Amino acid sequence: MKNLSEKAARNLAAVREKKPLIHNITNYVVMNYTANALLAMGASPVMAHAPNEVEEMVSFAGALVLNIGTLTDDWIASMIKAGKKASSLKTPIILDPVGSGATSLRTDSAKKIIKETIISVLRGNASEILSLRNNDSKTKGVDSIHSVQEAAQTAKILARELQTTLAITGQVDLVTNGESTVSVSNGHPLMACVTGTGCTATVTIGAFLAVDDDPVSATATALSYFGLAGEVAGKKASAPGSFMIELLDALYTITPEELRDGCKIKEN
Amino acid sequence: MKNLSEKAARNLAAVREKKPLIHNITNYVVMNYTANALLAMGASPVMAHAPNEVEEMVSFAGALVLNIGTLTDDWIASMIKAGKKASSLKTPIILDPVGSGATSLRTDSAKKIIKETIISVLRGNASEILSLRNNDSKTKGVDSIHSVQEAAQTAKILARELQTTLAITGQVDLVTNGESTVSVSNGHPLMACVTGTGCTATVTIGAFLAVDDDPVSATATALSYFGLAGEVAGKKASAPGSFMIELLDALYTITPEELRDGCKIKEN
Amino acid sequence: MKNLSEKAARNLAAVREKKPLIHNITNYVVMNYTANALLAMGASPVMAHAPNEVEEMVSFAGALVLNIGTLTDDWIASMIKAGKKASSLKTPIILDPVGSGATSLRTDSAKKIIKETIISVLRGNASEILSLRNNDSKTKGVDSIHSVQEAAQTAKILARELQTTLAITGQVDLVTNGESTVSVSNGHPLMACVTGTGCTATVTIGAFLAVDDDPVSATATALSYFGLAGEVAGKKASAPGSFMIELLDALYTITPEELRDGCKIKEN
Repeated sequence: MKNLSEKAARNLAAVREKKPLIHNITNYVVMNYTANALLAMGASPVMAHAPNEVEEMVSFAGALVLNIGTLTDDWIASMIKAGKKASSLKTPIILDPVGSGATSLRTDSAKKIIKETIISVLRGNASEILSLRNNDSKTKGVDSIHSVQEAAQTAKILARELQTTLAITGQVDLVTNGESTVSVSNGHPLMACVTGTGCTATVTIGAFLAVDDDPVSATATALSYFGLAGEVAGKKASAPGSFMIELLDALYTITPEELRDGCKIKEN
Repeated sequence: MKNLSEKAARNLAAVREKKPLIHNITNYVVMNYTANALLAMGASPVMAHAPNEVEEMVSFAGALVLNIGTLTDDWIASMIKAGKKASSLKTPIILDPVGSGATSLRTDSAKKIIKETIISVLRGNASEILSLRNNDSKTKGVDSIHSVQEAAQTAKILARELQTTLAITGQVDLVTNGESTVSVSNGHPLMACVTGTGCTATVTIGAFLAVDDDPVSATATALSYFGLAGEVAGKKASAPGSFMIELLDALYTITPEELRDGCKIKEN
Repeated sequence: MKNLSEKAARNLAAVREKKPLIHNITNYVVMNYTANALLAMGASPVMAHAPNEVEEMVSFAGALVLNIGTLTDDWIASMIKAGKKASSLKTPIILDPVGSGATSLRTDSAKKIIKETIISVLRGNASEILSLRNNDSKTKGVDSIHSVQEAAQTAKILARELQTTLAITGQVDLVTNGESTVSVSNGHPLMACVTGTGCTATVTIGAFLAVDDDPVSATATALSYFGLAGEVAGKKASAPGSFMIELLDALYTITPEELRDGCKIKEN
């Protein structure tokens, strides 16, 4: 898809030029890695979750990233507070419903955030995303048990129902707003062996949403860029420790032209 | 010890095949590293501490890891809640009493967890473990001031008293349930220069407990594997930054056969 | 400045010999990295924030590091409790007012900590430090919008007003207690592409404060050492992932003699 390849290049260049502030309310496990990923790609991360500062902080931000990976009720309340403020300012919000479907706290909290704020993009694996539709879907911890293929048809219906853009990531990523649907096949198997690569895909989408008004193209180009970084890293490293370091390096070194040429986005 | 070498190989193969879900309620400092270590060895980590989800989450888990490194009363309450549920399900629990002996909050919290749940394995350095017996033992922060040798005799008595398996790690690791005692001499001095290597030894034991019913052999083989990973890393790196990355790589690349051959476990 | 070069070497040697315990109440994002940095340089880190243990823990410490990067009211209360105890014991405290000026919670909390405890050193970027003086200074998230040059004159006045030592870090670092002023020009541009390098500068100062009674020389020599580690890392790595690992390695490998020779401290 030539248009989206060109747009990927433009979005990456725009992130590096504008250095958007990305406000994250996220989980403890990945905070350091996602902050480093945002810096490596050229954005400016801030982590802030106090109920008495999230509204002020998000008002400076180009995008708000919400991630329920190590949620408690207090943190969910802060996410909703920040999300309502972002919604009122038309600041894009991306939600990562980590482990939704695994416990009722996670499923219920994700649903509550979706109901009370305006989510631009919802990114997860197939079982996390499907859990937001029906209660019989169970995930094994935070790992996926559904294939992307299984999820595709349901995803379109769910995207329309929730009036948002869904990004279901796996071996092939699926992005749909219920009308337009694209798939992204950049990536590398070692990404599944590093904690927080899903969460890092999410913050990458956050950075691209800050420079691209169209959630579908922002999401697809971000996932392509992040997947390409995985491919570059996979050429240099063959085990997860060195791979995760090479992945940060690749986010920093990939040029817009390399992204345009390496982009694997397909209209469905 | 031929039997335990063979068992080490079988346990590692089993972790990679079964990919057990390991539920961690642990400290902020090491969460990312221990999650990456669990992924690298082939297990599936989840971090979850909310009081209203820990019981549900632990019911899917192959083992529960409790670590008091950055404890507060709230987190201890969640640990006990999860631990009681795990105990009722006969899911093995490993406790890492980080800094026990250094402050009364740490010593008291570790003792409370031990009293209210069924701990399969208790892993710490000598002064942490000894602090659980007598109040005159003081640790310097989270670092050990007792030798493994000093601790061995007391350990056997304490293991019987607490009806658990103790793993006292140091230059040589000691594992005892009061009856059987083994020592493990795999390892590398740079492990002491990376934060959370003790905590990572603990999660490795957690993964092995999920596939081996015998706490002594699960613990000894896990410590041998983790120590061997340190030896492999130490051949490639000579400073702690690159060492910690090579250590993750080694957890991923060591084969069951290499572990069988490199295993340094001795019956005492 | 020959005297400070010699002192830098002596301070580094003293940290490695005495291995001071550094008590950190800091943000979630950097905890792992700053703990590893402290270990790499030879110090002994502990992270502890529970209100019912901070006073006991800080009583063993050579220095207390307070960092408001992911603050909440609870954590600030613990910082003040630990800070009061440290003040009463004459244990040096270093405060890193991350994002002060960006939100009123951050500015107000930093000011409250300064008022209620005895801060030996206050380290931040120019806009963070200036925010502690006048309310018209606004920072963009946690990044600086003022130059070190702009800040220098105000810094001297502010240092006298607050009766503390200020370290304003940037391309060139400025250290002043209102009387003596020195600048440090060690460093590398990639340090700005890794999250928590500012926070890591802060803990390095903490370690040096534990072995050097003079806040100006402790701070200047610590910043020189940390900047030199950046220079060494920058010769080996050209992207932020590998740079952050090389930086830890350099903290470990730099000898006191190399620091004495590479030190770029200038009296103003």
